[in-house]
Order: sequence, then C-alpha cells, then structure tokens
Amino acid sequence: MESAATVQPLNHQLSFLFPTKLIRTKASPCRWPSKPATSHSTRLYCQKMYVPGFGEASPEAKAAKNLHNFFTYIAVRIVAAQLQSYNPEAYEELMEFLGRHSLNDGDKFCANLMRESSRHKGLDGISIQVRTAYCKNDFEWDNLKRLSSKMVTEANTKLMRDYVLETSHAESEK
Amino acid sequence: MESAATVQPLNHQLSFLFPTKLIRTKASPCRWPSKPATSHSTRLYCQKMYVPGFGEASPEAKAAKNLHNFFTYIAVRIVAAQLQSYNPEAYEELMEFLGRHSLNDGDKFCANLMRESSRHKGLDGISIQVRTAYCKNDFEWDNLKRLSSKMVTEANTKLMRDYVLETSHAESEK
Repeated sequence: MESAATVQPLNHQLSFLFPTKLIRTKASPCRWPSKPATSHSTRLYCQKMYVPGFGEASPEAKAAKNLHNFFTYIAVRIVAAQLQSYNPEAYEELMEFLGRHSLNDGDKFCANLMRESSRHKGLDGISIQVRTAYCKNDFEWDNLKRLSSKMVTEANTKLMRDYVLETSHAESEK
Repeated sequence: MESAATVQPLNHQLSFLFPTKLIRTKASPCRWPSKPATSHSTRLYCQKMYVPGFGEASPEAKAAKNLHNFFTYIAVRIVAAQLQSYNPEAYEELMEFLGRHSLNDGDKFCANLMRESSRHKGLDGISIQVRTAYCKNDFEWDNLKRLSSKMVTEANTKLMRDYVLETSHAESEK
C-alpha cells in the first residue's frame, strides 16, 4: 500500500517532464505518413520514445549482438558437457582452448577455434551448428519476454518497498 | 559453394558426437510423462539440448537479467535526452550522478538515485517508469528474435567463407 502511494505522484512528474506522446503506454510501430509530403507533414511520425546514442543501429540490434555472444557461450557449454561424456580427449582439448581464448566475442572465438580445427576435431563447426540450433529452436523467446516483463515489475516494487521502509524507519526514529 | 561443401560433413560429425535427440532441429517444450511413473518411465522427457551451468535458473532468466540492466541503461539515456531539452538543470545533475555511479547494475543504480531523489527531482521514479514502459511497450521483441536469427546465420556464413578463402589461398600458394 505504501508503494502504491509512492508510485502515484510519479505519473504526474512524468507527464510534467515529457510531452504526452513520449510517455504513452500503448506503442505502435513507426510509420511514414501515407499522404504526399507537405511542409507540415514531412516529419517522421513515431509514437515510441526516442532512444538516443544508437546511431543507425537500434537497441534491438544491440541486444541481438549480446544474445549472439551469449548463444555462442551456451553452445560451447553444451558441446563441452556432451564431450565430457562421449569424448573425454576432445573435452580436454576444448577446455585447454577455452583457457587460452575469451568467449566474450563469440565469432572471434569460433574463428580461432576454426583455425585450430584439425587439432580440435571439428569442434568449430559443431559449436556454430549448436548455437544456430539453440537460437532458432531451443531458446524460449516468449519466456524471455515474459521473464523480462515480470523482472521489471518486481524490481520496481522492491525498489519502492525498500525505499519506503527505509524512509519510514528513519521518520519513526526522529 | 565452397562453404556448402565445408558445412555438409559437420552434420555427420554432429550426429557422431551427440545422440540424435540432442541435435534435433524441431524443439518442443519439456514435459512430464502423462502416465503414472513406472521403473522405466520416471525420467523427465525433454527434446531440447541440455544446457549445463545454470543451476535452478535458465538461459532465458540470465538473458532477461542482462536485458533488465540494458533497459535501465536505455531509460536513463531517454530521460537524459529529454531533460537536456526541457530541464537543463536536472540534466546537469543527472550527468553528475552518472559520473559517480555505474549503470552496470540497473537496480543498484536506481536505488542509489532514489536515495538522492530530493536533489535529483524525482529522476529515480521517472527512470524506473520509463524502463517499465520501454520494456513492456516500446521494445520490439519480435524484431530481437528476427535479428538474432539473421545474425547467427550471417555470422556462420562469414566464418565459413573467410575460412575457405583463407585455406584455399594457402593451398594455392603451395
């Protein structure tokens, strides 16, 4: 109840700081005007919030790039776990390779693994096939959206609750 | 054409290293057996690849956590860009705060901002409302999936092409 009371005024602050179209809760895709351009209708009409700093890319492209590296990391974990059971020798070689190369840049890691493929028994091709299969078939995209939405709601509630508890405690001590 | 010739044998390697059910291309959700458990039907039946190392969490939860911090980063950028136009004084204060606090942990950043809210004119509440609106309305989840899928395909093709060009060049020099 305290958090609800705290949240309420923020809507007012938000509408005070930003133009209404920038804080609308229902999003729709950006679109060009369907009528021929005139002096006052040439501007791109977009109902979404403007996100600066991404140049010609987009936040989605940036997130996809991070996920791309994450999928490579997962593919290598999957391959390593399988090799540990079925091919201990190849597993040891992969572990040794992992000790020498960072997985932060997935494509660079795969390229390096590819250059040593003769020694690593085709682990390069296996890794990139596994990451493709994982990205396109196994990864639960709907679940990612659901978890992200749930996480932001819960995190906000927690932030508000902690703050209210902290401040009410401080008030009662006065 | 060269890359196709290189890719083909990898399917064979993959089926050699992994049991068939671990490299199936069509995924379906994990499910418990519908019949009562017997000695040979108690095992959880799952058609997805096993991803080790995530404990009780999941790769989707890990990705959602990273996106959560990314959304906070985006929200702060949106707020800063708006303040720069509408409230230069608050913008300066936010920039000064950003210089002192890392955005790597979104919730920690918001909690710190909240503790200084009186000085930062409610930027805490604005930031968490913007990240919620961005996550739930503006972020294009379908686009993220499409870009990730495209990225993994293009990256694999590039890796194969570069490797084939490199090795064929080395061959021709012999």
